[in-house]
Amino acid sequence: MTKLWGGRFNEPTNALVHRFNASIGFDVRLYDEDITGSVAWAAALHDARLLSAAERDTLIDGLEQVRAEFAAGRFVILPDDEDIHSAVERRLTEIVGPVGGKLHTGRSRNDQVATDFRLWLMRACAHLDGQLADLQRALIVNAEGALNLPMPGYTHLQHAQPVTWGHWALAHFWPLARDRRRLDGARRAAAVSPLGAGALAGSAFPIDRERLAARLGFTAITPNSLDAVSDRDFAAEFLFATALLGVHLSRLAEQLILFSSAEFGFVRLADAYTTGSSIMPQKRNPDTLELTRGKSGRLIGHLTGFLATLKGLPSSYDKDLQEDKEPVFDAFDTLDMALPVMSGLIATLEIRPERLAAQLEAGLLATELADYLVRQGLPFREAHHLVGRAVRLSEEQSVALTDLTAGDLQAISPHFGADAADVLTVAAALAARALPGGTAPAALADQLAAAREAVDAATANYLSQ
Amino acid sequence: MTKLWGGRFNEPTNALVHRFNASIGFDVRLYDEDITGSVAWAAALHDARLLSAAERDTLIDGLEQVRAEFAAGRFVILPDDEDIHSAVERRLTEIVGPVGGKLHTGRSRNDQVATDFRLWLMRACAHLDGQLADLQRALIVNAEGALNLPMPGYTHLQHAQPVTWGHWALAHFWPLARDRRRLDGARRAAAVSPLGAGALAGSAFPIDRERLAARLGFTAITPNSLDAVSDRDFAAEFLFATALLGVHLSRLAEQLILFSSAEFGFVRLADAYTTGSSIMPQKRNPDTLELTRGKSGRLIGHLTGFLATLKGLPSSYDKDLQEDKEPVFDAFDTLDMALPVMSGLIATLEIRPERLAAQLEAGLLATELADYLVRQGLPFREAHHLVGRAVRLSEEQSVALTDLTAGDLQAISPHFGADAADVLTVAAALAARALPGGTAPAALADQLAAAREAVDAATANYLSQ
Amino acid sequence: MTKLWGGRFNEPTNALVHRFNASIGFDVRLYDEDITGSVAWAAALHDARLLSAAERDTLIDGLEQVRAEFAAGRFVILPDDEDIHSAVERRLTEIVGPVGGKLHTGRSRNDQVATDFRLWLMRACAHLDGQLADLQRALIVNAEGALNLPMPGYTHLQHAQPVTWGHWALAHFWPLARDRRRLDGARRAAAVSPLGAGALAGSAFPIDRERLAARLGFTAITPNSLDAVSDRDFAAEFLFATALLGVHLSRLAEQLILFSSAEFGFVRLADAYTTGSSIMPQKRNPDTLELTRGKSGRLIGHLTGFLATLKGLPSSYDKDLQEDKEPVFDAFDTLDMALPVMSGLIATLEIRPERLAAQLEAGLLATELADYLVRQGLPFREAHHLVGRAVRLSEEQSVALTDLTAGDLQAISPHFGADAADVLTVAAALAARALPGGTAPAALADQLAAAREAVDAATANYLSQ
Amino acid sequence: MTKLWGGRFNEPTNALVHRFNASIGFDVRLYDEDITGSVAWAAALHDARLLSAAERDTLIDGLEQVRAEFAAGRFVILPDDEDIHSAVERRLTEIVGPVGGKLHTGRSRNDQVATDFRLWLMRACAHLDGQLADLQRALIVNAEGALNLPMPGYTHLQHAQPVTWGHWALAHFWPLARDRRRLDGARRAAAVSPLGAGALAGSAFPIDRERLAARLGFTAITPNSLDAVSDRDFAAEFLFATALLGVHLSRLAEQLILFSSAEFGFVRLADAYTTGSSIMPQKRNPDTLELTRGKSGRLIGHLTGFLATLKGLPSSYDKDLQEDKEPVFDAFDTLDMALPVMSGLIATLEIRPERLAAQLEAGLLATELADYLVRQGLPFREAHHLVGRAVRLSEEQSVALTDLTAGDLQAISPHFGADAADVLTVAAALAARALPGGTAPAALADQLAAAREAVDAATANYLSQ
Repeated sequence: MTKLWGGRFNEPTNALVHRFNASIGFDVRLYDEDITGSVAWAAALHDARLLSAAERDTLIDGLEQVRAEFAAGRFVILPDDEDIHSAVERRLTEIVGPVGGKLHTGRSRNDQVATDFRLWLMRACAHLDGQLADLQRALIVNAEGALNLPMPGYTHLQHAQPVTWGHWALAHFWPLARDRRRLDGARRAAAVSPLGAGALAGSAFPIDRERLAARLGFTAITPNSLDAVSDRDFAAEFLFATALLGVHLSRLAEQLILFSSAEFGFVRLADAYTTGSSIMPQKRNPDTLELTRGKSGRLIGHLTGFLATLKGLPSSYDKDLQEDKEPVFDAFDTLDMALPVMSGLIATLEIRPERLAAQLEAGLLATELADYLVRQGLPFREAHHLVGRAVRLSEEQSVALTDLTAGDLQAISPHFGADAADVLTVAAALAARALPGGTAPAALADQLAAAREAVDAATANYLSQ
Repeated sequence: MTKLWGGRFNEPTNALVHRFNASIGFDVRLYDEDITGSVAWAAALHDARLLSAAERDTLIDGLEQVRAEFAAGRFVILPDDEDIHSAVERRLTEIVGPVGGKLHTGRSRNDQVATDFRLWLMRACAHLDGQLADLQRALIVNAEGALNLPMPGYTHLQHAQPVTWGHWALAHFWPLARDRRRLDGARRAAAVSPLGAGALAGSAFPIDRERLAARLGFTAITPNSLDAVSDRDFAAEFLFATALLGVHLSRLAEQLILFSSAEFGFVRLADAYTTGSSIMPQKRNPDTLELTRGKSGRLIGHLTGFLATLKGLPSSYDKDLQEDKEPVFDAFDTLDMALPVMSGLIATLEIRPERLAAQLEAGLLATELADYLVRQGLPFREAHHLVGRAVRLSEEQSVALTDLTAGDLQAISPHFGADAADVLTVAAALAARALPGGTAPAALADQLAAAREAVDAATANYLSQ
Repeated sequence: MTKLWGGRFNEPTNALVHRFNASIGFDVRLYDEDITGSVAWAAALHDARLLSAAERDTLIDGLEQVRAEFAAGRFVILPDDEDIHSAVERRLTEIVGPVGGKLHTGRSRNDQVATDFRLWLMRACAHLDGQLADLQRALIVNAEGALNLPMPGYTHLQHAQPVTWGHWALAHFWPLARDRRRLDGARRAAAVSPLGAGALAGSAFPIDRERLAARLGFTAITPNSLDAVSDRDFAAEFLFATALLGVHLSRLAEQLILFSSAEFGFVRLADAYTTGSSIMPQKRNPDTLELTRGKSGRLIGHLTGFLATLKGLPSSYDKDLQEDKEPVFDAFDTLDMALPVMSGLIATLEIRPERLAAQLEAGLLATELADYLVRQGLPFREAHHLVGRAVRLSEEQSVALTDLTAGDLQAISPHFGADAADVLTVAAALAARALPGGTAPAALADQLAAAREAVDAATANYLSQ
Repeated sequence: MTKLWGGRFNEPTNALVHRFNASIGFDVRLYDEDITGSVAWAAALHDARLLSAAERDTLIDGLEQVRAEFAAGRFVILPDDEDIHSAVERRLTEIVGPVGGKLHTGRSRNDQVATDFRLWLMRACAHLDGQLADLQRALIVNAEGALNLPMPGYTHLQHAQPVTWGHWALAHFWPLARDRRRLDGARRAAAVSPLGAGALAGSAFPIDRERLAARLGFTAITPNSLDAVSDRDFAAEFLFATALLGVHLSRLAEQLILFSSAEFGFVRLADAYTTGSSIMPQKRNPDTLELTRGKSGRLIGHLTGFLATLKGLPSSYDKDLQEDKEPVFDAFDTLDMALPVMSGLIATLEIRPERLAAQLEAGLLATELADYLVRQGLPFREAHHLVGRAVRLSEEQSVALTDLTAGDLQAISPHFGADAADVLTVAAALAARALPGGTAPAALADQLAAAREAVDAATANYLSQ
């Protein structure tokens, strides 16, 4: 069979050129969306009286046969199939005969490929949303298991103030909620039908674009045909949403890598989520976490590369746009692995309370002493300065801050009462931070409830759409 | 005055280190938001009975005096002012005395800087939205002026089918509508108050976080204090929205650069928007368009760099996050120039109908002939193939497609009737594409109306928030 | 067979985790280098008296059998083969029995994979160098064919001064020479042997590292074992060299896309290098050029993503480094297609002298008039200003600059002599630019000779290494 | 004064456009190179008999006066000075009168700006090279101070095998040696003179390009004028070299941030290199290290953004290229701070041997046991497996690997002799790794000597050029 566009050419395409141009190697995974789109298009052609009912049914039956062949792994890609659209139409015509040539009426590959890709991406977002919800649930369960277990809180990777394990785990829950919102935004950006835009100027046949769009699950139609065939904002939004999601996974991974080091030792990863060394028999390496961290670089690269490709294109549709699919597919595949791996890792994570407790040293409580002085009426700046002197004194004496005597403290400031030492406990420090979002037990219980609600509300929202 | 945190240190900070760490060079532009945030914080401290009414008023009056000094350009930054927060508090304390030291009660620079930055970014989004609306309006006016003026439509930068100038101009309108949606998304992501998160674990004082947030124009409060001080998703969203907006401006610029070349000659830029050559007296260079195209690279770079910085941070707050402001500020400044420059350029753009007309060659009409055959009942694939032969014949005869005789066409296919030539006019080709989004006059009129509505609806939406 | 590192683990690795961790899907293409490295390692173990001669020969024969199986496509990858090193060793042991277990003595996958990857990259650079030389030769032939054919020269995409086609073609030759230098730099960066670094601390067996390195074609050994297992600078250098090469190809493609538009029409691409439209029968689309331009975005993305991955790794070897191969392989594959496609396209490019001539309008000669006045002794600034007036006069009179009369010119300045018009020819403008690198015939002849010499010298240099 | 190119324009440039186009805000830092280039150009014009000796001297004296004004901070930039070239020429003409207008003879801003930028970048590379050498020296001194001090070596951030502090410190030395090589490559790429290329086609006056180039310290001249005005490869190479250098600094910073955490505690940063908290009096934050890590993202962003800008430019010179300077300047400034800060931090770093010693647990020695069995003749794979069982046994018994009895070991394998325990010491493990690059004392002494030689050889090499 000749190429779709072969009529006016004298020479065959160079073989290497054919390979260079061909997208079938990766766009074959759009087969389902391509056929779904063509089935709807056949119905629309019939509505527009461009196909008889019989022709329509023949085409649809043929298309469903092609879909079945793909699903069963029996579809054979031929060397001349340059893309999924050509391959489906070629096979369809083999099955149904010349009437297959009527399917492309009023349609171009330019609006067709945009349609397929948008449909695929809408599905992909919904799929990742489900995986994100699973990871959120794993974090909730993990948080519940040690909601009020004290641990050192860090800023600058230095001990700062006491927090709890549940507080820490939920701190990784909320970024995922934002990721779900962004993926939903990408999905909604994709849910606009370009069908009917033709090659660039609009179709010349009386297709009911709105009806067709609704049939395919789109929520609107594109308002300008030139824009319709060149708009890949939805793909860029998807790549951004996945890159930032990757960053969040990377940060979680980074922290767990630290926590599973010998020096921290706060957690122990399940054997199923670690690997060994080819040379050092004692190793239990957090490879999955490292790969998750490493792969977020790849996701950033996909976003960057695609934006560079989009920048400065001169026409409505330029072939450069064929470069849209591989980064999107790879970003999806990367997360489609990384998300369930992370969920499983979190679900099987062993927390080691004794190692957390071992790091709850007195320095974490310095702020409590400053806050105590503020409650005595001192300006915070002065309080901060006085406690700084107390810290220095404890260092000079090589004792813990909690080991300073009441006399020591009163020598620094008479505002230190006999009850000053009472604030110097982890429990008091935790309890004091009772504002919404804080680390006190009641605040955490509220936060946990809010998290549970958020994960289900977002899921319900998705399912209803 | 000593540093805010100087109490426990024995040695002064190395001077170069001080310069390396200092952010006052760029975060000074947050002065207004910093003061606004502190005024609200003083009120909240009073509500929480941590300040008397008199202390609150003293602080607020002092802060307003500092604001006035900044606004008047009279504020003097001292060498020890490492950031805007220190500078404001230092000056406030000079004005109001030791009570100034009470302002930082229950607050950390970690939640303070996040508050300032979010407030600034909310404003920045609204400002850019206004500029985008102006550019959209300029495109609408430009489109109106030549709504139905025919021009060649391109794909692959090759002549494809006729479109109109208005169609082309509006094709650059809709991407900006999507940009406005994304900027609004970034603004909403920013509109969540971190105040009360403290350094990382939550504030230990009974601040009414909700009330405080509402006072500052936030729509919600952050649900987890650890996340609150490290979340910079809103900045990443802003950088992405600006990078993709930059890509859209770059594509528009690219097309206008082509159109203003000698070979295309479709437009003439106003003198005010071109520049000359230091050596070639005849040059009229589209520098503004080239810079707009070039600067989109910078915007991509800011996004990329910031994502790389965010990736893998180990604590809730790490100092790496100080790198959030410069790319955001520079992205804003870049667009704050590029958008009005582009609006002015569009508003003064001269379209050259004779040059557009000169490119309306017959090849643009080949699709019409194929569509004609489809209307005669031929499958599109066969029609496409037959017209390909007609194109080849015209090339062999070195005549235009429109110069083929009825006999020539009928020799190719008997389906070419005597009326086949009727479809071979630009007017017929335009009129045929009458679906929504197409290039026919009525469709374009509808599209123009939709564009007018969209620009105003979005603006109204913004103003009501 | 169990995993290489299975001895101390109680639970099997989660299946999804196994898939997530496995690199065999892409590192299988290192099989040849892996076996070459192992053959040399076996020899080195024998030199170090850790293998008998018979054991060495058994291992080498077994390895060569494995290599033959790969080369013949008969090697079967098993589910437990997580990477190419495991797969080769597993199969080797199947062939030779327990002695296969001696091969890994004193070696770790950490130094092994770095060795394989360096060897592969050295070959890849040499391969791309050959393709670059071919493209350079195509440009030389193309330049020769129209060395002195005048065409408009552009800056800012505006007509600037006359140049020639040969000058233009050679302008795309020299960037490729720089690309070859950079690829050679990446190759030399790779040519340092990490073998003997072990897992991180160095091998504990008396391997002669220098001899082993020489045997494998390395030119030096790594000086620090911790650095040796984590250094991927060579891969980053390769990705940078390919990204900048991609930028050069993109710029060449961009110009040829313009030149093959209807409006420019300077060139006609051979049919074999264009493709048609599924809907518009007349189209001849420069898809190969557009893809080349588009794919340069992907190359930038690979570089960016990999640098983001490298940034901030905490140990000598972290698993994140497994992300080094896919971007490098894809960059290679992309160029391995794009380079010969571009060479073929250049070799078959038809130049259209009449279209070039049609654009040689008088405005291109304005600089000549200014240079004329300078030769009369006027300061250039004044000359530039006077010619600017002449240009404006010609525009006001709607005539070409060359149509101004001697009287017109003298009215502007008495320094315009009767011979002023003599400089206003394209031939004179070309001839005047006779400095090295300029557009005059003699200068171009010299440049062409230099280009011929450069392409061969670089090739010879490569072959001798 | 009018613009350099004002002659043919009817309307003034829009004020915002002027600001958008102007580069004087950042290219003013090229003043010294611009004047140096102009002084040499004046001499070349005299050589070419285009200036009299008196004119040349007048111009040179005037230029030196302008330089002095800049150096003294007395130069006043006027609103119409759009770039440094215009500003210098404007002021020169004020000083010397109309003869100033002769300086631009045969030169364009296109070759002029490329010249200035190349000269600046050559200096910048040399400057950073010196700072890199200083950092290398600081690492050498640091390594010397604890060359053989044992510490745990890590892979995957898990304890792997014992190494020494000196080994670790030198592992950060060698990447900097590679960075110096890359910066030198960028410098050599820049050291090619574009002067004489004119606007694009070459200068029309008989300038001796070679002599002029030599006068300015260039080592060659550009071979093609079109390429000369558009080549920014040297800037891209610089940005890549700085981005990868930033990655190396980030990795060093990351490790020191870990090492200075409470949990590791391997080092203590000098007070001068840490900062405190505005709220937590006890904090000693490694801000400088965090900023260094964070700023490497910015450097990656600059590289990415610039490559995106370069991609796809259509002419020899396009205004987009004006975007070359800001990323390069900012990359330089970033490193110009970060490098000496890091050198100072390393020079004042306190190592805490007791904390290193506390982490030298028995698991680090497992490989020794495997190597022991290999020396008994067992294949490594079997040895690895047997030691894996020993590790598991020790975990089951909750004892250290070194606490297993000879009986325990022999129960696992009879190949464990009575002397097996001898290898289970840190000293033995270190001593065993005696290959070049390994962690044994003699190997480290050699490496240290090689490092000393390398730092000085590279420096000498630079100084001699």
